[in-house]
Amino acid sequence: MSQLLKRWNELAEVKEELANRDWFFGTSGNLSIKVSNEPLHFLVSSSGKDKRKKTNEDFLLVDKNGKQVESTSLKPSAETLLHQQVYNKTNAGCSLHIHTVDNNVISELYGDAGEIVFKSQEIIKAFGIWEEDAEIKIPIIYNFADIPSLANEFSHYVKEDTGAVLIRNHGITVWGKTAFDAKKHLEAWEFLFSYHLKLLSVKNVLRTQAEISI
Amino acid sequence: MSQLLKRWNELAEVKEELANRDWFFGTSGNLSIKVSNEPLHFLVSSSGKDKRKKTNEDFLLVDKNGKQVESTSLKPSAETLLHQQVYNKTNAGCSLHIHTVDNNVISELYGDAGEIVFKSQEIIKAFGIWEEDAEIKIPIIYNFADIPSLANEFSHYVKEDTGAVLIRNHGITVWGKTAFDAKKHLEAWEFLFSYHLKLLSVKNVLRTQAEISI
Amino acid sequence: MSQLLKRWNELAEVKEELANRDWFFGTSGNLSIKVSNEPLHFLVSSSGKDKRKKTNEDFLLVDKNGKQVESTSLKPSAETLLHQQVYNKTNAGCSLHIHTVDNNVISELYGDAGEIVFKSQEIIKAFGIWEEDAEIKIPIIYNFADIPSLANEFSHYVKEDTGAVLIRNHGITVWGKTAFDAKKHLEAWEFLFSYHLKLLSVKNVLRTQAEISI
Amino acid sequence: MSQLLKRWNELAEVKEELANRDWFFGTSGNLSIKVSNEPLHFLVSSSGKDKRKKTNEDFLLVDKNGKQVESTSLKPSAETLLHQQVYNKTNAGCSLHIHTVDNNVISELYGDAGEIVFKSQEIIKAFGIWEEDAEIKIPIIYNFADIPSLANEFSHYVKEDTGAVLIRNHGITVWGKTAFDAKKHLEAWEFLFSYHLKLLSVKNVLRTQAEISI
Repeated sequence: MSQLLKRWNELAEVKEELANRDWFFGTSGNLSIKVSNEPLHFLVSSSGKDKRKKTNEDFLLVDKNGKQVESTSLKPSAETLLHQQVYNKTNAGCSLHIHTVDNNVISELYGDAGEIVFKSQEIIKAFGIWEEDAEIKIPIIYNFADIPSLANEFSHYVKEDTGAVLIRNHGITVWGKTAFDAKKHLEAWEFLFSYHLKLLSVKNVLRTQAEISI
Repeated sequence: MSQLLKRWNELAEVKEELANRDWFFGTSGNLSIKVSNEPLHFLVSSSGKDKRKKTNEDFLLVDKNGKQVESTSLKPSAETLLHQQVYNKTNAGCSLHIHTVDNNVISELYGDAGEIVFKSQEIIKAFGIWEEDAEIKIPIIYNFADIPSLANEFSHYVKEDTGAVLIRNHGITVWGKTAFDAKKHLEAWEFLFSYHLKLLSVKNVLRTQAEISI
Repeated sequence: MSQLLKRWNELAEVKEELANRDWFFGTSGNLSIKVSNEPLHFLVSSSGKDKRKKTNEDFLLVDKNGKQVESTSLKPSAETLLHQQVYNKTNAGCSLHIHTVDNNVISELYGDAGEIVFKSQEIIKAFGIWEEDAEIKIPIIYNFADIPSLANEFSHYVKEDTGAVLIRNHGITVWGKTAFDAKKHLEAWEFLFSYHLKLLSVKNVLRTQAEISI
Repeated sequence: MSQLLKRWNELAEVKEELANRDWFFGTSGNLSIKVSNEPLHFLVSSSGKDKRKKTNEDFLLVDKNGKQVESTSLKPSAETLLHQQVYNKTNAGCSLHIHTVDNNVISELYGDAGEIVFKSQEIIKAFGIWEEDAEIKIPIIYNFADIPSLANEFSHYVKEDTGAVLIRNHGITVWGKTAFDAKKHLEAWEFLFSYHLKLLSVKNVLRTQAEISI
């Protein structure tokens, strides 16, 4: 099987799984996977497709500048510029961008602070961090409607082969060495976000009641 | 494939997807898709069917007055009058009406205000609006039990080929040029509703605690 | 197809749908469907099975006293007594008993009041009530661990061919003329419960903030 | 079918069901099932696999010391030590460890108390306890990053053939005589956790409003 087909199938599988969780509402979100280093080519979501469907127009091959490698009527996702940052600045192999209710709420609650820090959560081991009381943080950046401005702001946080950035009221972008890694990290982040919101939703109740009589 | 069959399949596919999200609890909700302009014919949900099932009685063809085009024992949905408004007043091609817990709660919270406004949410781009800090609003109308009264009230907000109305404690109706567009908008609205409720559920906690020690 | 097989399949289909919603956690819940009036025979869940699986031991045929009609190693659900009340006192054709987090929370919040009343909800039409501002209420009874005592308490509320009772911290029992009706009502009740809890979770937030700045 | 294959399939089936609920986010969680008593051999999750996939590398056979029985490139889960405690100290046949948002939140809320107690919940019958107003409690232990320390702490609570322990911000471990029992108990615990959190999220609202006008 060619490298291209192999990567296509890998990305299609990730897309299907995330779609089944309804993580692409309103055709939001986009995904990419690197196919070759020299020249730098990667597959990226076509613009405006319903990601719950599986078609042979779901992705298209682009180069390091986000230009189509072959002539096609498909348009790469408007946010291909962010994926370019990932592949041009690191050795990452896959990048996933999704909107969830929980990552949007977290980005709004902590947007002014510019980041959110998690500690003492076992799921942090998913990031390859095994110390007790380990901390992990994710930056939250301003959501420029202008994509080049957004990509520029985003690029300041793209330094290593794995990483993640929250865009305020826009969603998360996670990248990793492989599709497996990127998805693993994505799930871990979403778990942390959901955990945090659930805890917030009950914590003040607990403090204002002397005794919980359940 | 005939236009009728093509549209039937398109609507059946949307129905299946929404049903899988449990958006038709208690046989609530109804869907329609335009088949022809001259004469104006559209497929609309049969009354009282379990929308989790896929049968050849799921929809029936009606004209601009909501009358069956062919003799059948099936009855069009009681709310066909609302779909008629959409096709008679605009060039929309599809209209979706569903009840969700979240759209009902939003309609109750903001029903007295008559609308809810969202801004600075990336998902607003799903409506084709790309400006920074764009706003989008949805009217919330009174839920007349009498369907002709409801359809009349509803019609005041049916002006363009795409649009949406919340009916208080009754659900949302979304229409668009195609089934694809209508579903995309529906998902974007539901995302906004869920986002807003999640934010409300944690926001005051944050304000009443000097420090969140999580 | 025999009446027995027909009803078996009907009940199996309902079971599968409810199981897919995880409405039978910890082997909780039980279902029944009437097969004949003279003599009164109905199919009821076997005791202690995993309801996510589909086997030919899922149900067994019992008579009006809950005794097996044919010799079998299967045991009818411990709560068969409640199903007997339904078939002995009404002309219902199907009875469904499930535990959900939301119906348990509702039953705890309003258990002391002995009932909960809903009004001005469109989904009430699922119960065949079409008046504007219609009300619907469901009694909440004490959860006797002793099943005959529970069945006795339950029987006071079994008067019509369709109905529903909440058992405190135990779940809902819904019955109707057909499996279709019982499931429709079950979904409508669960929608109302979830709606009410979601509204409660955000309502005081709204009241303590002069302005919601979204 | 060999005992090994039979147990493999049993565990694979449980894994698939739990994976479908997204209970293995970020490759978290691990499962085991006993294959033989003399010598003590059990199947346990391989380290770092995506548990949504079904492969013939999902589990591997280890002995009472957690050592591979046959030469393989696979590594047993880092938390195999906890499963060893279960099989070395009791006659349990299956042990399940999963992270959910709700069990993590419960473990954080009640971690300082060292346990959480539930009573008057019908679902408690899933644990084989049939008394009225029965109580059930689960210990919450400190989450040592060092697995031998964690296994040692865990072992203090492993006394009977069925049981469960919450590890703070780490998840639940449930064991039982069979895979069926372990899964049944796991579901019952998760139901109790979700119930409790939902109740907390609305309870103070109810107390601070004289009248709920819904």
